[in-house]
Amino acid sequence: MRFDIISVLPGLLDSPFAHSILQRAQKKGIAEIHVHNLRDFSSNKHKNVDDYPYGGGSGMVMSIEPFAACIEKLQAERQYDEVVFMTPDGETLNQTMANQLSLGKNVIILCGHYKGIDQRIRDLYVTKEISIGDYVLSGGELPAAVLVDSIVRLIPGVLSDETSALSDSFQGELLDAPVYTRPAEWRGIRVPEILLSGDQAKINNWRHEKALERTMKRRPDLLE
Amino acid sequence: MRFDIISVLPGLLDSPFAHSILQRAQKKGIAEIHVHNLRDFSSNKHKNVDDYPYGGGSGMVMSIEPFAACIEKLQAERQYDEVVFMTPDGETLNQTMANQLSLGKNVIILCGHYKGIDQRIRDLYVTKEISIGDYVLSGGELPAAVLVDSIVRLIPGVLSDETSALSDSFQGELLDAPVYTRPAEWRGIRVPEILLSGDQAKINNWRHEKALERTMKRRPDLLE
Repeated sequence: MRFDIISVLPGLLDSPFAHSILQRAQKKGIAEIHVHNLRDFSSNKHKNVDDYPYGGGSGMVMSIEPFAACIEKLQAERQYDEVVFMTPDGETLNQTMANQLSLGKNVIILCGHYKGIDQRIRDLYVTKEISIGDYVLSGGELPAAVLVDSIVRLIPGVLSDETSALSDSFQGELLDAPVYTRPAEWRGIRVPEILLSGDQAKINNWRHEKALERTMKRRPDLLE
Repeated sequence: MRFDIISVLPGLLDSPFAHSILQRAQKKGIAEIHVHNLRDFSSNKHKNVDDYPYGGGSGMVMSIEPFAACIEKLQAERQYDEVVFMTPDGETLNQTMANQLSLGKNVIILCGHYKGIDQRIRDLYVTKEISIGDYVLSGGELPAAVLVDSIVRLIPGVLSDETSALSDSFQGELLDAPVYTRPAEWRGIRVPEILLSGDQAKINNWRHEKALERTMKRRPDLLE
């Protein structure tokens, strides 16, 4: 799967894509992540990518032309499943959406900044608007990294132990049960005895009960 | 405000904290961000920070001892408002929570990985568990960066134009109205005439109407 991310701060994304599962997926050739510098597509001599908003008000608005130039160049090279715009007023990302997007082949992701992007970019090019949550961030770069991470780890072959992705929180209907590792006792606090019992049926029951309990307490909405 | 982030992949956070508003806030001395390598706190000769889960199952569990050593070292140096654990089963981050956290002075943030962290770390040290949304990621580093970004931009003096943060989506009850910048016409598509009218009262009305319209269409839940 190929991701083309268009950003005014491409360097911000250097380290998130150079570590852990995203790095491994690229090395294995399962994911390709290209970050494009929006300024390279400005025809303006100062390489400007924003301008004052029509109608006044605070903050700058990202101009249509650099985004249009970059998107059209990419679309001339290959077909894209989606042109995604990361924006706080988009559809809220969830696991179902990540699962669906992981079936795609090529995705463009636009990172907004400042007060937003010219509405005509959204009307003309964007096919999907995604928010990672109800909070305001400085730009679309971290949301783009979050989106790519949520998708890439679902592509078969990326995780070494495929059952690990399937048993994560949100893949089923329940949150995870508590987990424990050695030592069995730490400053007087012991691991629940049942986990040391070796009785796998009992352990599975306990985990299901605890997962249900935690979900009821923390996220009853997931059970509805 | 000071952030101490404990991570097994500290390098993953290099570039997000070295750009844009987070970089500026640190240069201005308004925010201090320290990323600690969890492995430095492992007493194990292999610098291991994880182990097999009690009771079996796939995935590794992060051990209690390295986290405990790092948290206790930090807590001996200064008082912390919160010890936050980034986890998909935590309370979902929203703008109100970011606003509240921005009033604090010192915050520790734990980044989980693999199958999770030993439940005793959560029971003994963690004061707040935060999720950035209902999706699974490879680790707590991107969520930690998202949390820090959402908080730091709210600290007075960080944004050059303070009204800009206050008028963002989610600070009020409405999503933003569409924004436009030059050119007034692009491939035959014109900016709404009202924005070029110079009549500020009419422009403000139009913006409020459009914001309301967009919120009703996309996020009626915000109006309830």
